[in-house]
Amino acid sequence: LCWTVLCSAMPDPNYREHLIKMEQSQQTGGRVLLSKAEQQLGVLLHKLKQQEMESSEFPPAMHFFKAKPLIRNSTLFSLLQKMPKGGALHVHDFALVDVDWLVKNVTYRQHCYVCFTDDQSVRFIFASCQPKPVPHCSEWMLLETMRAKIDNCTDLDNSFIRNLTLYTDNPEAAYPNQDVVWKRFEETFLAAWGLVTYAPVFKDYFFEGLKQFNADNVMYLELRALLPQTYELDGTLNDRVWTLKTYQEVVKQFVAEHPDFFGARVIFTAHRGLNASELKEVIKEAVQLQREFPEIMAGFDLVGREDTGRPLWYYREALSLPAELGVSMPYFFHAGETDVQGTDVDQNMLDALLLNTSRIGHGFALVHHPTTKALSRKMGVAVEVCPISNQVLKLVTDMRNHPAAVLMSEGHPIVISSDDPALFGASGLSYDFYEAFVGIAGLKSDTGTLKELAVNSIRYSSLSPKLKEEALVKWQKKWDKFVVENLP
Amino acid sequence: LCWTVLCSAMPDPNYREHLIKMEQSQQTGGRVLLSKAEQQLGVLLHKLKQQEMESSEFPPAMHFFKAKPLIRNSTLFSLLQKMPKGGALHVHDFALVDVDWLVKNVTYRQHCYVCFTDDQSVRFIFASCQPKPVPHCSEWMLLETMRAKIDNCTDLDNSFIRNLTLYTDNPEAAYPNQDVVWKRFEETFLAAWGLVTYAPVFKDYFFEGLKQFNADNVMYLELRALLPQTYELDGTLNDRVWTLKTYQEVVKQFVAEHPDFFGARVIFTAHRGLNASELKEVIKEAVQLQREFPEIMAGFDLVGREDTGRPLWYYREALSLPAELGVSMPYFFHAGETDVQGTDVDQNMLDALLLNTSRIGHGFALVHHPTTKALSRKMGVAVEVCPISNQVLKLVTDMRNHPAAVLMSEGHPIVISSDDPALFGASGLSYDFYEAFVGIAGLKSDTGTLKELAVNSIRYSSLSPKLKEEALVKWQKKWDKFVVENLP
Ligand SMILES: [Zn+2]
Ligand SMILES: [Zn+2]
Repeated sequence: LCWTVLCSAMPDPNYREHLIKMEQSQQTGGRVLLSKAEQQLGVLLHKLKQQEMESSEFPPAMHFFKAKPLIRNSTLFSLLQKMPKGGALHVHDFALVDVDWLVKNVTYRQHCYVCFTDDQSVRFIFASCQPKPVPHCSEWMLLETMRAKIDNCTDLDNSFIRNLTLYTDNPEAAYPNQDVVWKRFEETFLAAWGLVTYAPVFKDYFFEGLKQFNADNVMYLELRALLPQTYELDGTLNDRVWTLKTYQEVVKQFVAEHPDFFGARVIFTAHRGLNASELKEVIKEAVQLQREFPEIMAGFDLVGREDTGRPLWYYREALSLPAELGVSMPYFFHAGETDVQGTDVDQNMLDALLLNTSRIGHGFALVHHPTTKALSRKMGVAVEVCPISNQVLKLVTDMRNHPAAVLMSEGHPIVISSDDPALFGASGLSYDFYEAFVGIAGLKSDTGTLKELAVNSIRYSSLSPKLKEEALVKWQKKWDKFVVENLP
Repeated sequence: LCWTVLCSAMPDPNYREHLIKMEQSQQTGGRVLLSKAEQQLGVLLHKLKQQEMESSEFPPAMHFFKAKPLIRNSTLFSLLQKMPKGGALHVHDFALVDVDWLVKNVTYRQHCYVCFTDDQSVRFIFASCQPKPVPHCSEWMLLETMRAKIDNCTDLDNSFIRNLTLYTDNPEAAYPNQDVVWKRFEETFLAAWGLVTYAPVFKDYFFEGLKQFNADNVMYLELRALLPQTYELDGTLNDRVWTLKTYQEVVKQFVAEHPDFFGARVIFTAHRGLNASELKEVIKEAVQLQREFPEIMAGFDLVGREDTGRPLWYYREALSLPAELGVSMPYFFHAGETDVQGTDVDQNMLDALLLNTSRIGHGFALVHHPTTKALSRKMGVAVEVCPISNQVLKLVTDMRNHPAAVLMSEGHPIVISSDDPALFGASGLSYDFYEAFVGIAGLKSDTGTLKELAVNSIRYSSLSPKLKEEALVKWQKKWDKFVVENLP
């Protein structure tokens, strides 16, 4: 008795199939049990993804600024937009809202002044009378008056838009290296600052942000927030407590108007430029805020460019303060948003874990650190992957080389987020989901992958177990509806 | 009794140190025991590498064509050139020798004709009388006559050089995508073909190749070779056996003249364009050659662009033939030289392993396949990493994102090689060692990393255990001398 396969020296096709399946089961979503309907949707997803991959221009291989029109016109993107994506766990306070809204709505409000800086940027301020000039800037001009004098405001408005985003036709030429793009990145924040910290705009901006994420089928937000002082028309300042309370009120109001939306929480962030004793003071304040506003406040993080900032280990004493005081202070550290290897900064991910971080922001460099990666997995610390941000800030060119492809192939806990969508010309989460699903995860990722990514965004959120349960129930309803409505 | 560390809520610095060391010990070379002298050399290496990383232009972040002058002028590169690197296990037959030599030496020989193709490339042929015209090409012109008519041959020679390499001032513009760069890549092979397959040149070319690798302190070569027919001046053709014998003779002659050099072996390669039954014939021939020339012939491989070629699994019957016949045929498959994910081609690495490959050529996509990666490690199948080739052929932009960084951080068995140095304007192995050591392995790689990479190139070679032992003894002597001579 001799079966062909057994007698042949050829590799056993069944063993091969087994290995392929075993590998596939390891990937993000590889063990999710799928309903018949979900499997059917998977067939459609596969077909649409294959179309993307076979096109002469593969969007994930291109810079997002050039890929965006292609992505926006793809059927797969429309599907991802409709998909209930759960929560956005890594987004920053002043990069939520399409800058069009800032220019077309906010700068057209009364009492808005503008000045032009020596290095061709802009600053804005709202004031009831002519504000005092600031260094390296032209005189303040009332925008209302200025616009009345010119025939066509489009050019002016477009120049504002250019100053408020990183978008440019030729990003490779405009941003030859990380230093240049980070400088511009910080510049856009300064340009927006006077608009978004004006108290009435501050409220409206956040409300508009929730609206845009909700429209993108995101039901929950965790906001990295600097909690700055805001100002009123007469120049009086509101303190940090006002800012935090305002977030809480806006969320309540938004949920009241949009009962499908689940809510938002705030991760208080300070800048890596602070010295150790300055950070100590901020941490004390954070502890205080956490105690007073446990509902809205989720925890603490440090922001700013890691490569030029102080490493986490430098702040170890300040960051150990809450534990020393016996109070809880959840951390959500940005760590490993770097491509330098083997330096102190490259150690931030390990130190974040040693400081008991709840998640790792970016973790771009995690795959270079097998011990740290294993520790992150063992501790159940998810990595917040922000593909478009990493590409625009020049950590990666072709999304297929994004290290999250390694994490996803191993089923490492991750969530997908958008960091600063407004600055990149993205919105909500869908563009980043597209990059992750089509570019990073490859052809074999399927409905299970998307489902796990969405569920992860609730599972790894800062919500209490009870609220997670509620959010999951709410999400599942949306998901089932989405699947049924989009069957091929 | 209360020690600061024990009472503090701060992470224990000793535990942290332990984790960092544990991680470092996993990297390539992390467990190599180093002598005092080797450690001292490591201090110098660290200092030099830090200099490279702190420079405003970091060569591994740039395209090699732009980085090359910076690399060539760096002290670290000179050191790596002097370093005994062991063997070059992944280099192709007609891309060994600086094309300057082809132009300045070979095209100046008697009886060399040139024609210019419709698409602005060139073809060469040696002939005793006017050769017959070929399609899509100008008439054949005797170069000697042509050069006699022009005042200055530099422009002509430079145009030849341009046609024989991929080098260009602005690679990003010249090669917008993989299709374009692969087309040019194949074009350069055609341009060189008539020169390198002329029997007398064929010998000299290989001899010159050995000379250049030897000068770069490489002591052993495994050559991917097409074993083409070669031609004589009167047009008679020499068969494959002639070609293989010639390799054997040239190696013998070279070793006789350079007793420090260890030798070279040949991996017979066929093109992925063949169909299954064509490959079967080639495999039968390979088995025959392997039997007749066991000393020079190391095994078999398939070449040509994977993304557009047939997957290994398509050839499974032909490739199982030797095992079926009960004869040994070591395989050294190119596999995973791709960035498409989840396709049949992306399965080549697993199939190479199932077909019992001895090494994996490139394995660029291996980190996306945890099961396959684990299998490769378990089977002791080393990955041949060719950084510059991957960058020029547009798989990766910044070397710090090269997936070999993941492999190296895990101590996966790898060797460094240069694929087609002549086409990329590189030479020997040193440029690729620079990219691997400075760009891919990061600041923490040290003398141990370099030592393990060199030893790997012997350990994972096709040599018999006895010859490996001999080669290692020879290498160790060179290494010890290198270390002593370059102490800071
Ligand atoms: Zn961020
Ligand atoms: Zn090759």
